[in-house]
Amino acid sequence: MSPAQPPALGVGLVGYSFMGRAHSQAWRSVGAFFDLPRRPAMVAVAGRSGPDVARAAEQLGWAEAVTDVKELLVRDDIHVLDICTPGDSHAELAVAALEAGKHVLCEKPLANTVAEAEAMAAAAERAAARGVRSMVGFNYRRVPAIALARRLVADGRLGRIRHIRAQYLQDWITDPLFPLVWRLQKERAGSGALGDIGAHIIDLAQFVGGSRITGVSAVTETFVKERPLAGSSDGLAPGASSGGTGPVTVDDAALFTARTAAGALASFEATRFAAGRKNALRIELNGSDGSLAFDFESMNDLWFHDHTESARTAGFRRILVTEPDHPYAGAWWPPGHLLGYEHSFTHEIHDFVQAIGDGSDPAPSFADGLQVQRVLAAVEASACDDSRWTPVG
Amino acid sequence: MSPAQPPALGVGLVGYSFMGRAHSQAWRSVGAFFDLPRRPAMVAVAGRSGPDVARAAEQLGWAEAVTDVKELLVRDDIHVLDICTPGDSHAELAVAALEAGKHVLCEKPLANTVAEAEAMAAAAERAAARGVRSMVGFNYRRVPAIALARRLVADGRLGRIRHIRAQYLQDWITDPLFPLVWRLQKERAGSGALGDIGAHIIDLAQFVGGSRITGVSAVTETFVKERPLAGSSDGLAPGASSGGTGPVTVDDAALFTARTAAGALASFEATRFAAGRKNALRIELNGSDGSLAFDFESMNDLWFHDHTESARTAGFRRILVTEPDHPYAGAWWPPGHLLGYEHSFTHEIHDFVQAIGDGSDPAPSFADGLQVQRVLAAVEASACDDSRWTPVG
Amino acid sequence: MSPAQPPALGVGLVGYSFMGRAHSQAWRSVGAFFDLPRRPAMVAVAGRSGPDVARAAEQLGWAEAVTDVKELLVRDDIHVLDICTPGDSHAELAVAALEAGKHVLCEKPLANTVAEAEAMAAAAERAAARGVRSMVGFNYRRVPAIALARRLVADGRLGRIRHIRAQYLQDWITDPLFPLVWRLQKERAGSGALGDIGAHIIDLAQFVGGSRITGVSAVTETFVKERPLAGSSDGLAPGASSGGTGPVTVDDAALFTARTAAGALASFEATRFAAGRKNALRIELNGSDGSLAFDFESMNDLWFHDHTESARTAGFRRILVTEPDHPYAGAWWPPGHLLGYEHSFTHEIHDFVQAIGDGSDPAPSFADGLQVQRVLAAVEASACDDSRWTPVG
Amino acid sequence: MSPAQPPALGVGLVGYSFMGRAHSQAWRSVGAFFDLPRRPAMVAVAGRSGPDVARAAEQLGWAEAVTDVKELLVRDDIHVLDICTPGDSHAELAVAALEAGKHVLCEKPLANTVAEAEAMAAAAERAAARGVRSMVGFNYRRVPAIALARRLVADGRLGRIRHIRAQYLQDWITDPLFPLVWRLQKERAGSGALGDIGAHIIDLAQFVGGSRITGVSAVTETFVKERPLAGSSDGLAPGASSGGTGPVTVDDAALFTARTAAGALASFEATRFAAGRKNALRIELNGSDGSLAFDFESMNDLWFHDHTESARTAGFRRILVTEPDHPYAGAWWPPGHLLGYEHSFTHEIHDFVQAIGDGSDPAPSFADGLQVQRVLAAVEASACDDSRWTPVG
Repeated sequence: MSPAQPPALGVGLVGYSFMGRAHSQAWRSVGAFFDLPRRPAMVAVAGRSGPDVARAAEQLGWAEAVTDVKELLVRDDIHVLDICTPGDSHAELAVAALEAGKHVLCEKPLANTVAEAEAMAAAAERAAARGVRSMVGFNYRRVPAIALARRLVADGRLGRIRHIRAQYLQDWITDPLFPLVWRLQKERAGSGALGDIGAHIIDLAQFVGGSRITGVSAVTETFVKERPLAGSSDGLAPGASSGGTGPVTVDDAALFTARTAAGALASFEATRFAAGRKNALRIELNGSDGSLAFDFESMNDLWFHDHTESARTAGFRRILVTEPDHPYAGAWWPPGHLLGYEHSFTHEIHDFVQAIGDGSDPAPSFADGLQVQRVLAAVEASACDDSRWTPVG
Repeated sequence: MSPAQPPALGVGLVGYSFMGRAHSQAWRSVGAFFDLPRRPAMVAVAGRSGPDVARAAEQLGWAEAVTDVKELLVRDDIHVLDICTPGDSHAELAVAALEAGKHVLCEKPLANTVAEAEAMAAAAERAAARGVRSMVGFNYRRVPAIALARRLVADGRLGRIRHIRAQYLQDWITDPLFPLVWRLQKERAGSGALGDIGAHIIDLAQFVGGSRITGVSAVTETFVKERPLAGSSDGLAPGASSGGTGPVTVDDAALFTARTAAGALASFEATRFAAGRKNALRIELNGSDGSLAFDFESMNDLWFHDHTESARTAGFRRILVTEPDHPYAGAWWPPGHLLGYEHSFTHEIHDFVQAIGDGSDPAPSFADGLQVQRVLAAVEASACDDSRWTPVG
Repeated sequence: MSPAQPPALGVGLVGYSFMGRAHSQAWRSVGAFFDLPRRPAMVAVAGRSGPDVARAAEQLGWAEAVTDVKELLVRDDIHVLDICTPGDSHAELAVAALEAGKHVLCEKPLANTVAEAEAMAAAAERAAARGVRSMVGFNYRRVPAIALARRLVADGRLGRIRHIRAQYLQDWITDPLFPLVWRLQKERAGSGALGDIGAHIIDLAQFVGGSRITGVSAVTETFVKERPLAGSSDGLAPGASSGGTGPVTVDDAALFTARTAAGALASFEATRFAAGRKNALRIELNGSDGSLAFDFESMNDLWFHDHTESARTAGFRRILVTEPDHPYAGAWWPPGHLLGYEHSFTHEIHDFVQAIGDGSDPAPSFADGLQVQRVLAAVEASACDDSRWTPVG
Repeated sequence: MSPAQPPALGVGLVGYSFMGRAHSQAWRSVGAFFDLPRRPAMVAVAGRSGPDVARAAEQLGWAEAVTDVKELLVRDDIHVLDICTPGDSHAELAVAALEAGKHVLCEKPLANTVAEAEAMAAAAERAAARGVRSMVGFNYRRVPAIALARRLVADGRLGRIRHIRAQYLQDWITDPLFPLVWRLQKERAGSGALGDIGAHIIDLAQFVGGSRITGVSAVTETFVKERPLAGSSDGLAPGASSGGTGPVTVDDAALFTARTAAGALASFEATRFAAGRKNALRIELNGSDGSLAFDFESMNDLWFHDHTESARTAGFRRILVTEPDHPYAGAWWPPGHLLGYEHSFTHEIHDFVQAIGDGSDPAPSFADGLQVQRVLAAVEASACDDSRWTPVG
């Protein structure tokens, strides 16, 4: 081991389903492509079921498996808690970890309620004063095309932004026989399409556009109100039905209009009923000097229109965001060699580790996550109040 | 002249600007591509300025030019009045023509107010009882891809429709120095983006989806509130400024959510501030069994996803709507030889003349136009009432 | 009729099938959208079958129908002969017309053999000395996106051109039961995909790239060697089979590589067996400073990459070629309102009439058509000689 | 460690530049996503420079670094040699490893000459008889969209294949000041665009189409004949110039037509001068019953046209190849969550390890690599012989 080797950063993971697998791949890969101020060590993964978590540890590359997450909070060789469980457990875990002096990376949505999110943001602020860092996992900010979009807006290439339209379209529950998994239950998931995927486009619209949402008018709908009971706890694959049915207690779709502090009109749609759209996170921004468009189903492309150019040759150009001077892209492969979904997590973890090393606060912070939570709450309030315009708290 | 020649159908046109030119090209072309029960004769065009209307007649192929539109209503050789003037003149002209026994083709929006539209619909109903036909010019229904979309929905290929998202995006007034043309003045145009282009997507969403909008929640915005005075009456080209500025009295953009009678959630956006989008009339429908997507900027394409197919080979397919068994397309060129904007008018006029010949009522009727007007009114009412959900009258 | 009215330009048409219909629509429409130095008058159409040509005249808007094309050559009220017949009749008709002092617009390919084309080019040169004009109908040059492509190349926006790849893909004879129409018979059509659609991409590659092809290496293939006999003479629709089969005497597909005088490498493919490609005339050019790409199935789009730009924002941009300062487009509709296939003929006829009025020689000339014919001949020679490199004569 | 744990498969890597990094990421990731019959152990990496290889080992996750590759061949804990060096070293390394009883994964092109490739294929055949496996790294076969394309062809969905058109377009040496890296020197690289990227499309055309190339007619070109000398040995990044210039001894571009044993016509183009195309590996196949199209710059998409469908709804559909029943995709993320370039290597290594575990011969074999080498040789021979048709040896 060379003398110049950076000090280890011990990581404990809780949750090893979809998000846990994605984070594990990121922790495992980040050091091979990025220079880091701390060397990630995949110390332990926690889960309730002993055999399951042992299998996950081996498969995903964690040195140990534990069945009590609290163990992760007391060990000296663990400096980071990475929270990949459903939203109902975030607040308790994150606050405890921060108080135990662990840096926390917490999946989105930050929490299931504004109150929980407020407690988390307060804990994060207290922790930051002691040099303990926290970050919420809006991973799509780290897709290179989105990061480039943000920089073009920040550089003023769009001028004054007039319109934002954001959609997150999926179709995995269009079949009424798809079972009642945890993501369709309010007590576990908090909300449905709104909190799961709507949270992402709220964060992106504010991040890329550079201005916060100040008010909303919303409608939500649950198209299929009763579904077969699921045997499985997995949010995305149908489990074995246990014979009966149960009520869907979250929204299937949420649509809302919004205004930003900077005066843009925005529209949002999150749905799991858009047949044929698999993971179509789309955002378009129109400004006085240019426009941008993105669709995650072609995630390496950013479409940019420069409205200051001559109309003779102006048009939306497809920027293939794989060039050395594009965000994150230079660390990987030559131009034109595409990146995938999981790379967004690798970049997220890179930025998190970098902030820990730098002693700076990473973004998006828990305060940012709280603000998204407030937008979600305003959407739900407006939808319950005849779509009336509802300021963001 | 062969004995089998169908009887003439004399046409009088009022208005010879953008819409008048498009209608003229359609009247001039329709007989060369379609068999018709009546032979259109381009008898006369009416306009206020003698020299201008004479020049238009010669250029556009009308046999005569008149300066008093009333003349068209009393001539026996004129059977059809084609109204291509701004919305503030529609009601008076259409009602007078129908009462004079002339079939009427009236550009959209049907009128500037619900009250005017009601009077027109009533006049149309009375006229229909006497065999006099009327139709409102929602030309986009006759784009072959849209007509095919309607048929696929009617055939049940989409199953139960869950989502409609419709946008009409233009960018011709993003420049704050663009002058105050008539389309930006409420007394002439009725409303702004909402009535001009929003009316089209309202009609299309209802036509393609096959279900009426029952309620809306809306926001509107005028981004640029004062503009240079224009010398010209033309709605699309900047005229010579007369030195001062005046207030923009219509919306620059309108966004709204809606529900249809059949239970779909819908979103609408009409704007003239979407930099880089020139005439992006877009509509997407998601149903339980399939989805459709269309963008007028690629108007020969219809994208169709068949959700009943195996996921292994399913995906949005690009139907190039130029095949002999596509609506209207067989009358023109071999497959793959594209049609343009103006063809929608030729098809519209074909259907109108066919209905006259058949003695049937063409669609969209004035009653359909009135219903769109009611949606527009509900949008304006909601926008003025804190976006509160507003039933369509 | 106003005193300023330009003098009439009497036109006689021969052939009223696919090309004849397209030319008729162009003659009928051109004056409504363009200012012209001569006023086209659709005097007469000629055809062999009296009843058929009479019906065509009425439908397509020609004042008279004649059964002897020679009649068109002796009438004083006819100044232009527009030749829309199959290639085997071009030479005789064109030479006779030019000698009779008629301007000639002749469909492509100019002729079925180099010898015929040489005679035509010589006749055209003699006629030009007497002020009689001639032009060959490579209509795709007049698609606005192609005309813009040419101008961008001429302006140096691509720098030194390294690569040209051109394809013309159709699929209308993939079915082996498609009958033996005239386009599949060497004595009528001269060659198959090569002369019919290959001629277009040869012309376009030279026109847009600005440099002539100097040599080729080719392969050709006839996949289906025997087909049902056709009752019809129409080249694109299957006629009633008369019971037997006959040999296909032309190529189904032709592929060749080429070099241009300016040092570019080029590849060409013309086929009628590309299932799903209806009229995919595609061309891409790569130069030291930029690239262009076009596909006729999206004919209003030109894709342009500016290689001198920063890689951070560079990419192929979609220019929607409907702006006032794009070639031809300003004469039609506002931006974003698309044009179709037939408009290329309207533009072609505009340029032809303009040249007649100006007293200048229109392009592409018969000499240009002869040069394309020489490339076609070199392709056939190479394909018969083991693909050996063959200079263009 | 659980008792069910599969036995270790020790791996030694030689070369740690572009390909070595990609293979390392694959070895590091494969076990987390796929069940494997052997557990890969990243034992050692070999390189000439001690400090460099030590740094690479640490960064890329190899337990040891060695400076003599022969060491890897004698160790008992190494069962696989993974060869990621330039082509001039492949034959010696691979033959030695196979003779030492090591399974070999060798990057493409298999060798720089047919003679070397023959020796390697012979060694592979001898080794296979002893249960020692070998595979050549045409990684693009393992892009899920390409693997799906192969299966659709094998299932007969395209019917009889008539056309294949394959292009591999890059632009990284368009600048004449780009230095003379090893990839531009014949003695290291064997050939230029032809062997580097042309080899990939030759392999893919044969793999997806399911039929071998029997003959070719070719042209090649070196546009920039002299370049600044490079200080670096890296093939993709410009090194520090050492002041002078040297001759480019390989092709910049290669174009050829071909025929397959099954009767298809094919065209190929490999170039590094296609400005704006970064890694545009494109392939399209047209058959009697359907067509497929792919472009690596949108590598998660496969476009499929089913020609047996009604023309009313037929069209190229975009299959987003991320479904559970798509090749490889189910191991990763939910539908619509894209994969990237590096995943092709993970899949390749999965298949290689699976074959080792199964005791079967993996594909593509060294014999397949030799056959590609013979096509490359035929291309070079034809290009030197006036493009004359040249059978594949």
